[in-house]
Amino acid sequence: MASPIQHDHDIPDDDELRTIYTFAIQLAKDAGKMLLDSLYARRRDGQDGRTPSNPSNEDVTPQELTTREKLNAVDIVTQTDLQVEAFIHAAISARYPTHDFIGEEMYSASHSGATSGTSKEYRVTHKPTWIVDPLDGTVNFTHGFPMFCVSIALVVNQVPVVGVIYAPLLGQLFSACKGQGAFLNEATRLPLLGSAGVGPIPSDAPRRCIFSCEWGKDRREGPTGNMRRKVDSFVTMASEVDGPGGKGGMVHGMRSLGSAALDLAYVAMGSFDIWWEGGCWEWDVAAGICLVHEAGGLVTTANPPEDWEKGRVEDAKLGGRLYLAIRPASDCESGETARQGQERCVREVWRRVRTLDYDRPGG
Amino acid sequence: MASPIQHDHDIPDDDELRTIYTFAIQLAKDAGKMLLDSLYARRRDGQDGRTPSNPSNEDVTPQELTTREKLNAVDIVTQTDLQVEAFIHAAISARYPTHDFIGEEMYSASHSGATSGTSKEYRVTHKPTWIVDPLDGTVNFTHGFPMFCVSIALVVNQVPVVGVIYAPLLGQLFSACKGQGAFLNEATRLPLLGSAGVGPIPSDAPRRCIFSCEWGKDRREGPTGNMRRKVDSFVTMASEVDGPGGKGGMVHGMRSLGSAALDLAYVAMGSFDIWWEGGCWEWDVAAGICLVHEAGGLVTTANPPEDWEKGRVEDAKLGGRLYLAIRPASDCESGETARQGQERCVREVWRRVRTLDYDRPGG
Repeated sequence: MASPIQHDHDIPDDDELRTIYTFAIQLAKDAGKMLLDSLYARRRDGQDGRTPSNPSNEDVTPQELTTREKLNAVDIVTQTDLQVEAFIHAAISARYPTHDFIGEEMYSASHSGATSGTSKEYRVTHKPTWIVDPLDGTVNFTHGFPMFCVSIALVVNQVPVVGVIYAPLLGQLFSACKGQGAFLNEATRLPLLGSAGVGPIPSDAPRRCIFSCEWGKDRREGPTGNMRRKVDSFVTMASEVDGPGGKGGMVHGMRSLGSAALDLAYVAMGSFDIWWEGGCWEWDVAAGICLVHEAGGLVTTANPPEDWEKGRVEDAKLGGRLYLAIRPASDCESGETARQGQERCVREVWRRVRTLDYDRPGG
Repeated sequence: MASPIQHDHDIPDDDELRTIYTFAIQLAKDAGKMLLDSLYARRRDGQDGRTPSNPSNEDVTPQELTTREKLNAVDIVTQTDLQVEAFIHAAISARYPTHDFIGEEMYSASHSGATSGTSKEYRVTHKPTWIVDPLDGTVNFTHGFPMFCVSIALVVNQVPVVGVIYAPLLGQLFSACKGQGAFLNEATRLPLLGSAGVGPIPSDAPRRCIFSCEWGKDRREGPTGNMRRKVDSFVTMASEVDGPGGKGGMVHGMRSLGSAALDLAYVAMGSFDIWWEGGCWEWDVAAGICLVHEAGGLVTTANPPEDWEKGRVEDAKLGGRLYLAIRPASDCESGETARQGQERCVREVWRRVRTLDYDRPGG
């Protein structure tokens, strides 16, 4: 991929970065409020008359309400996605007109003529670039399940340096800025229990670990489909130690939330030990990667490289669509450092998973 | 199962029930605060010194902290479980001395001499009986993942008539009382979007549904193990419509939270359309069943009965260890009632799942 010439005056220094960080947090709060307003507007519109505080529905038949709601269920989500992204884009353009901007909605719209989603090109240059998902966890949002969020990141030289994830119905705002750590609700440093609190990576990992994974949208059956590749991997991770091929991982728990951004936030929090995923995009992960790094975690690729047993554990490529994240950790009494423990855990996952088949040009 | 003679004066009337409901909500709040205090005590004890607000750790080596934490990680959970249950039991005994009490910890302790967990007998009589899980989602709690809760129910004549589930790190308190509906944080009636907001059960259900499921602790490999029975069922529910045996469910989302009580709370909220589970116990589901019923949902058995296509959809047996819950719904324009839509959804699930192998004497 050709990169434009890099202008040094575009690269924010530490002071500027702190200002940008404060700006991004406020932006996420405002966007999160828009999401909540939209959710509750739907609640009002979809009111079934059982709640006495909404007398305006008295003359409306259930049928009318149902129809109106069925329209809303689709419309509101689309509208909310677009409105929130437009709001964020406008705010960023006004404040940082020289920065690039990539938002999920705008990106998808600009590719509406493409024949397939897989033709999406990776467009992040070395310039400061805002990468935004106005609503991650859309299905959760339509169902009123709290695991939805807005995700805002600033990426410089391909590295996420500011990341903010706000889940307004949970009341949880996760934020990180390069060199400054990661925080919950601007008050509690992540990981939540402190890196000694979450402890070293267990010596028998992935045992005693919480493994977070998503089923995704690719549901083709058959041995070569991504769903089968994922499920085989999930089963190996979950099985008793004598399980498939003697590779059973016997993880402590299997979790699926339906939001990649929140999966990464909970890895940063130390709540999930391992997150393994393929198929998502840079706007799903940019902010989360910043959070995990600043909390002391690691993000590499989901697919085991050829030299997976001994080779270097590389950072995940932002646009690579394949991610494996390991939580922050403390050093171990045995002398193993936190990083060594994390890399051991990475290899234990690579040993147990099938390769996933997601690709993109230029990624 | 022999039932003791039923004393009518033990059965609470509507006024008494409202008093009990208020009492149970306060009890859940107090217990939830104990859980949070325990979590944050662990945070303090496990502090790694990176947070400047904890200078007392300055002279402690990382090794010492790690050891101390490793002890805590086990001890605190056990202690928390026991302490919170003892607190709840004492409060209930003082206030309602004629009521029975079944708590997870006490129950397990009284069976410590049994050779197997499956020998646990069902002990709920027709008397008013409090059924309590002081900490549901223990693995989540040890990891600081917010999906843990206290669950408190009052069961009369085998029917949960009061149910309170409080997830203190989420700040979400779910409560229900027979005949009075279900609520979030004592303010918002469930389902969250109103039953018109969540709409009728989709005509092509389980498509467009969120399917909630848990992997559980039984991880034996092999075709007869419960894990394989579950995974086969998950895959059928998830697969594209042309999937396994033409039975692919193509559900919109697959979710696993690691807490049966919260799974049921989110069914009551309308966030999960379907929850299908085997292996949990009455303390995991008693409060949640009350919530689902009061919100307008349905709870039946996970295992398809012989006449699954046409037979009556029976209520789940409280101690049956097999549960299938369907969210609240509105009537459909086509004339199908909410209940008919829910039963249609039940049969669509039964059509796609394998039977699970969980049993108990007297259940």
